[in-house]
Amino acid sequence: MALNGCKPNPQPTKLCDNNSHKISVLPRRYAASHPNPCANMPLKDKKSYKPCDLIIYGALGDLSRRKLFISLYRLENANLLEADTRILGVDRHDNDNAVFTAFVLKNLQEFLNDKIENSVWQRFSARLSYLKIDLTQQDQYLQLKAVLTPHTRVAVNYFAVSPVLFKNICHGLQHAGVLNQESRMVMEKPIGHDLQSCKEINDAVAKVFSEAQVFRIDHYLGKETVLNLLALRFANSIFTTNWDHNTIDHIQVTVAEEVGIEGRFEYFDKTGQLRDMLQNHLLQILTFIAMEPPVNLEAKSIRNEKIKVLEALRPITASNADEKTVRGQYSAGFLKGSAVPGYLEEDGADVDSSTESFVALRVDIDNWRWAGVPFYLRTGKRMTHKRTEIVIYFKQLPHNIFGDSFRELPQNKLTIHLQPNEGVDVQILNKVPGIDEHIKLQKTKLDLSFSETFKKSSIFGGYEKLVLEAMRGNPTLFLSREEIEQAWIWVDSIQDAWQHTNETPKQYQAGSWGPVASVALLARDNRAWEE
Amino acid sequence: MALNGCKPNPQPTKLCDNNSHKISVLPRRYAASHPNPCANMPLKDKKSYKPCDLIIYGALGDLSRRKLFISLYRLENANLLEADTRILGVDRHDNDNAVFTAFVLKNLQEFLNDKIENSVWQRFSARLSYLKIDLTQQDQYLQLKAVLTPHTRVAVNYFAVSPVLFKNICHGLQHAGVLNQESRMVMEKPIGHDLQSCKEINDAVAKVFSEAQVFRIDHYLGKETVLNLLALRFANSIFTTNWDHNTIDHIQVTVAEEVGIEGRFEYFDKTGQLRDMLQNHLLQILTFIAMEPPVNLEAKSIRNEKIKVLEALRPITASNADEKTVRGQYSAGFLKGSAVPGYLEEDGADVDSSTESFVALRVDIDNWRWAGVPFYLRTGKRMTHKRTEIVIYFKQLPHNIFGDSFRELPQNKLTIHLQPNEGVDVQILNKVPGIDEHIKLQKTKLDLSFSETFKKSSIFGGYEKLVLEAMRGNPTLFLSREEIEQAWIWVDSIQDAWQHTNETPKQYQAGSWGPVASVALLARDNRAWEE
Repeated sequence: MALNGCKPNPQPTKLCDNNSHKISVLPRRYAASHPNPCANMPLKDKKSYKPCDLIIYGALGDLSRRKLFISLYRLENANLLEADTRILGVDRHDNDNAVFTAFVLKNLQEFLNDKIENSVWQRFSARLSYLKIDLTQQDQYLQLKAVLTPHTRVAVNYFAVSPVLFKNICHGLQHAGVLNQESRMVMEKPIGHDLQSCKEINDAVAKVFSEAQVFRIDHYLGKETVLNLLALRFANSIFTTNWDHNTIDHIQVTVAEEVGIEGRFEYFDKTGQLRDMLQNHLLQILTFIAMEPPVNLEAKSIRNEKIKVLEALRPITASNADEKTVRGQYSAGFLKGSAVPGYLEEDGADVDSSTESFVALRVDIDNWRWAGVPFYLRTGKRMTHKRTEIVIYFKQLPHNIFGDSFRELPQNKLTIHLQPNEGVDVQILNKVPGIDEHIKLQKTKLDLSFSETFKKSSIFGGYEKLVLEAMRGNPTLFLSREEIEQAWIWVDSIQDAWQHTNETPKQYQAGSWGPVASVALLARDNRAWEE
Repeated sequence: MALNGCKPNPQPTKLCDNNSHKISVLPRRYAASHPNPCANMPLKDKKSYKPCDLIIYGALGDLSRRKLFISLYRLENANLLEADTRILGVDRHDNDNAVFTAFVLKNLQEFLNDKIENSVWQRFSARLSYLKIDLTQQDQYLQLKAVLTPHTRVAVNYFAVSPVLFKNICHGLQHAGVLNQESRMVMEKPIGHDLQSCKEINDAVAKVFSEAQVFRIDHYLGKETVLNLLALRFANSIFTTNWDHNTIDHIQVTVAEEVGIEGRFEYFDKTGQLRDMLQNHLLQILTFIAMEPPVNLEAKSIRNEKIKVLEALRPITASNADEKTVRGQYSAGFLKGSAVPGYLEEDGADVDSSTESFVALRVDIDNWRWAGVPFYLRTGKRMTHKRTEIVIYFKQLPHNIFGDSFRELPQNKLTIHLQPNEGVDVQILNKVPGIDEHIKLQKTKLDLSFSETFKKSSIFGGYEKLVLEAMRGNPTLFLSREEIEQAWIWVDSIQDAWQHTNETPKQYQAGSWGPVASVALLARDNRAWEE
């Protein structure tokens, strides 16, 4: 028992069956005392259903602490974890279950913005156990043999560690012989910093997991409003029939962060905003907006359509990078009334760094649907507000009979808000009520705020959704290898172009909307960023 | 002075110039003490501007009492009456200015749902004067010569009397020689009860007023939301490009009244709901929804487009009236918890009456835009709620990838609410927030409530707008002769069809949504009324 770091959880000891080694590690009988949500499942699903062991490699690390435990606890709180799901933390430090459970509690207290309900914590902590493995030591993985039962329970291996360890984990798991066709692995960004390194990771993983077993997370794909894009686009004829170059003028995607690099200078400086945010989150949003209607909601259909978009992205190369891209780096400034340092003054900064903390692009999609409709993407750190939004600008009307109000009629706009609040609105023109001689128009909004409209349902973040989907084995919202590599091909060519032109990034004051050049990027096309 | 019923107003006597006969009747100098809103008009408008005399024939009658005075007072309250506008009440009773002014005040107290502001009443009452004319006595109109100055002031003659007197008034005015090309006449429904009687009225009026001088009121055309239809349709590409048989499935117009016949059995029983409500209000709404985009907002352009719609209405005749129309008559029932009598039990009812108090129609418009898109109109008295609304149903999507939520996807709907509250909303399908395994959809509304959005501006009723426009001389929102006669041609054929089939109206309980047959009317087309 000591070998496995196996001790009963402090609270639910009575639930542990100490007669069985395996069960003492993961309190299997826990399920018996809780209603099984599968009880009412249709027979078909019941047949294929197997309980799930979530194994978190790097259970003491940053990702686990800040995101995973919180997401799992929230799922528990919402009664969304299957009764027989177990959570095994794996890391190199010498902990027992009790210490690990206390560690998880401490992290929840620190990062969960809600009160921890005692009854929820009781249920949750009963699922937890810990196993000490030095991930670089192949033999130590053999301990898993004593814990996992791949023929009766599905192992979901969450790689919450640096990609340099992925190969080790894969080898270790193979060596231990605990994998079968039902096993899954979950990983998230950074999945490489270019096509080459991404391929290496994918290759290493592919040696032991087939593509169908691999769940690549981009947590933006778990966000309500990103998923709602599917509903908006494909369940509403007023949008479905208005979603191409005939009716749409252009599209803007903004992911503005208030935060700087948050003490991660070394990591970020090697990465830059293009790789850190645009290659994944913004391109994912882009593909959801731009893809052709999939024939169904299966992973295969959606992934195929997303890849087709990525393949149709017009390359940005040294010859056109000047007119299509803007790189920026923040200088000292003010944010919410406080002075904040510039990028080059951050802790541990390389004062000669020319890494971008802001990027804006004009993206063209060379296909039948989007010919002539530019997508403007921008993302940056230390910007005025935290704001993530998609704005669809519909075409201007060809003829204006309301010249008294507007010399040029403002365009209709569909705005999809992701942050800080999720919601959808459509800007339309309405008559100003009143009995003026002429019909006066005014911009107004048809509005749908998610948090107001759906008061009863709690809105989950992207992580909860994706962790749950990984445990459920539904790959629709995860990235395929082809997709992520296609994104790198396109992003690499931008990176190469920048390397080639060797221009330093444009300065912008912290707390602004980015460098002036990003305004000019749209002004050249007679357009302006949504502000 | 006595001859003219001329006495200074009780309050603003000091404003009257007793040296001048004319002025003593209409307190012309009133203007001097008030800012002239024309002062800041552009020169072009200033040049053509002439002060206005509003002459109300039938000033002691029902229309004046319930509608006109209130509208005029509200315009005064909103500072929308020109400073030099004068209001002359004409009727056959022996009143002087003071008695008339007191009469107006009493009516305001009775029918205005607001407090009467003393300062506003001071300004308003200073405009009022009275003239006794027996409208059937041609010579008595000669008194107007002493009051009106057509070369310096525009006379707006408001015929607030029964149409049987219109010919008399026209002759009287001509005999008195007080008309010129700038004079106007205003009339409102009923403008005939069929094509023949409508033509007679129009012919009589046309003998002394050219078509450009005639302002025919349908107060629905003054309503914010009806006018807003122009803005919605022609200033918003998302609607402009979605406004035909390609994207719209069908359209419903409901004008439901709670009231019964309000003691007017004799009038109503000769008229019926088809003539009383549908021929005017519903057909007006229909033309605003269905017309082609006008090249501008001039009366000529808009009227032309409206007439084209009326001309394209597929005739309803004896051969198809059965499947295209439903006539109803209310029986005793409950409304808001109170028992109310049936139509045949109303005061003064003819118990054998087969007049309809409810009508529902399926209307087809045989033109390029609307081929295959039915318009369902219904209007009735003693219905569940007072409700006026237009609902545009967009087409169903050809393919459904959200079968888990809806076997058939609900259609997008644009609803334009006219009563009881004005507003616009679009029903769309959204993802239900939450992390269910499947994407679940839910109907939600993108919403724009006029009263909430435009809190500062007061929303006027249709009358105020139209009375003001008549004084301003802007004919856009008034009905042309051709239009109203075209509407009668179409309605007469329905009336003839009913006469021919000689069916009694279907009974419906007061407080319901009308006869069951009106449900069947849509059910035959696999559709249902908005409830």
